[in-house]
Amino acid sequence: MPHVGKSDLLGRRNGPAMPRTLSQSATALRPSVFATLADRMKQLPPDHLPLHIGDTFRKPPTEAQLQSFRWSEWDSLYKYSHPFGLETLLATLTDKLKKKNGIPCSANCVQTSCGATGGLASAAATLLEPGDEVLVLAPYWPLIKGILLSRGCLPVEVPFTTEWSRDPDFDPLVALSTHLTPRTKALYFSNPNNPDGFVYSEAQLRVLADFAIEHDLWVLSDEAYEDYLYDQVEHISIAALPGMFERTLSVYTFSKSYAMAGLRLGYVVAPEAVSGALRRVSNHQIYNLSGALQRCAEQAVKQGEGFLAESRALYQPARDALFSACAGRCRKPSGGGYVFLELADGPAAWDLIHRALDRGLCSAPGEAFGQDFAHCVRICFTAAPLPDIERGAAILKELLN
Amino acid sequence: MPHVGKSDLLGRRNGPAMPRTLSQSATALRPSVFATLADRMKQLPPDHLPLHIGDTFRKPPTEAQLQSFRWSEWDSLYKYSHPFGLETLLATLTDKLKKKNGIPCSANCVQTSCGATGGLASAAATLLEPGDEVLVLAPYWPLIKGILLSRGCLPVEVPFTTEWSRDPDFDPLVALSTHLTPRTKALYFSNPNNPDGFVYSEAQLRVLADFAIEHDLWVLSDEAYEDYLYDQVEHISIAALPGMFERTLSVYTFSKSYAMAGLRLGYVVAPEAVSGALRRVSNHQIYNLSGALQRCAEQAVKQGEGFLAESRALYQPARDALFSACAGRCRKPSGGGYVFLELADGPAAWDLIHRALDRGLCSAPGEAFGQDFAHCVRICFTAAPLPDIERGAAILKELLN
Repeated sequence: MPHVGKSDLLGRRNGPAMPRTLSQSATALRPSVFATLADRMKQLPPDHLPLHIGDTFRKPPTEAQLQSFRWSEWDSLYKYSHPFGLETLLATLTDKLKKKNGIPCSANCVQTSCGATGGLASAAATLLEPGDEVLVLAPYWPLIKGILLSRGCLPVEVPFTTEWSRDPDFDPLVALSTHLTPRTKALYFSNPNNPDGFVYSEAQLRVLADFAIEHDLWVLSDEAYEDYLYDQVEHISIAALPGMFERTLSVYTFSKSYAMAGLRLGYVVAPEAVSGALRRVSNHQIYNLSGALQRCAEQAVKQGEGFLAESRALYQPARDALFSACAGRCRKPSGGGYVFLELADGPAAWDLIHRALDRGLCSAPGEAFGQDFAHCVRICFTAAPLPDIERGAAILKELLN
Repeated sequence: MPHVGKSDLLGRRNGPAMPRTLSQSATALRPSVFATLADRMKQLPPDHLPLHIGDTFRKPPTEAQLQSFRWSEWDSLYKYSHPFGLETLLATLTDKLKKKNGIPCSANCVQTSCGATGGLASAAATLLEPGDEVLVLAPYWPLIKGILLSRGCLPVEVPFTTEWSRDPDFDPLVALSTHLTPRTKALYFSNPNNPDGFVYSEAQLRVLADFAIEHDLWVLSDEAYEDYLYDQVEHISIAALPGMFERTLSVYTFSKSYAMAGLRLGYVVAPEAVSGALRRVSNHQIYNLSGALQRCAEQAVKQGEGFLAESRALYQPARDALFSACAGRCRKPSGGGYVFLELADGPAAWDLIHRALDRGLCSAPGEAFGQDFAHCVRICFTAAPLPDIERGAAILKELLN
């Protein structure tokens, strides 16, 4: 069977002037910055510390694990289930969103999704036109950039949380307004913020809310880390603020709170004027989520309150160990699962990453989190049990000395 | 907390002239035509016949069922797995694609997806620009229209398979060429075709292939029903034809072949010049699929050969029963899971649908399958065991008399 070369394949041949190219938005997606480290990571010893990823060493609450169910008893397990989500799961989530997040939603507002990633992809397709600009508060979760580029939108990076937590003269409205154009249609932020662990206070959220209202922006509120909180800090959902539910799509996941990243379950809550369209979009992106996995998720929410408290108790000393090893080179994270170290510059950051890899400690390069953060390094403190984090902290401390 | 009305919410308020609307493509998605029947369906007796959907009454091969695995033994079960798919599953699928489909691919060409739906959504985002036109051979699988509209593309319906199987003067090249414009970028078809069970011969595929090559089109080949074949008819993948792998994205699912619709697993095979971008797009739409469910899928392919033969043996008499009840009002389907009945006109089709519902027999309105098919009704013969299909056939026969 004849094969043509890549350049020929993507060019024009045989036919009239119809370009058989890939879409611009697909072409705009670049391989992950992690890819540059892939070969080195393959050669790591078995006891290496995988602190470059955002995951947890915990297993889900027992009641939510696959082996806790008598799958053979459920007749409809392998049939299509409802594209919105299982009715009982939606009811459970609505109850949680109202009580815990203070979001004034009904079950009609909730759509299950393939993790927060899938939820944000659906939200972007529902709200945004190709060519729209989205303010992305930086440093940010790396995948949001590709999600917006996939939609043909322009992510506009606004250095924000790190500045706000450090610089008393930082004016968030100036920072936001500087990046506003007539094409700006939405604001994305994560709270607690991945990677720097910034948790927004109510007053800080009010600043974002007023800005969004004044400039008539949609808000994409990524609350993947809502349960990763330390030092009695409280998580507040921006959609709970007066006037905000109407313009906010809040995105949640079971990946972090319930240690179920591998099952790929999340959900989006949107005002009713949006949720109908969001549901139709989601329907055409994934059809529905596995009913079996939704049952796991439902049990996690129903029975996982104690699990969440345990996680906090396990992660806080891990954060302390890693933070103290940073020797003042990072802000103490109030939430999330990472320390976000600042080095002198990009080369210094890459040098640290490589020297850490020599010692079996994996970390994530700051440039993945925004163009202004090449001098940073992200290290996860939830991806391994405390003794391993302490071992990582000792390595880090040595390297930084 | 104050709520504004829908019209206010979607209009402009407080801010400058920045429209806070939904995206045009999301707005273009309409509720499913099934939605008009939803209320009536809720009132059906427990012994009703759900033959409006495309599903199977079978359960997956035993080895692929959730209860067949010792989940607690797998440490990485709840962690992120590789966004492309589990390495062992990709190897198994590559082997299957080469041997069974004759597609000259490597494991680098395969991307797992959230069913065929997710695979086609990723394929569309990889290849198509908003505004592109796609020839959709009709009658067609209803979701493809929304998948293309979600991408901002225009599905252009080409009445095709029904004509081709019936009209000796039908000229497929004329039918295709009539709908070609400078914006035409791809051709979508399903083989075997949902809803009419048309299975393309090699010569027929060659016609499509030559047309795609001449006009430099991408081909989206939906092969969800590749294993639903009757009367010794053979399924051929268009990507196996010389010169076609380079321009074809072939989409498969575990939903039909292995009765795993509820687990939401499928895959796309693309030439290497495309698969890198496809993988990046998919990565930003869903991140990855559940590793647990991928293990089920892997066992299905590895151990499901006998299951596929059993299915054919079970579905063929069901097809015969339903086809014979149609009394000449439909073409005998060589593949797929449906009879696609033709009535006098749209009102006659709706009349049949409602009278069938009165008797507990659910069917799908033809207008979901293309603008020229309002006079049709689709009835599934795989969604219930043979005695139920025979009961449905008896009802249908009476109604048509």
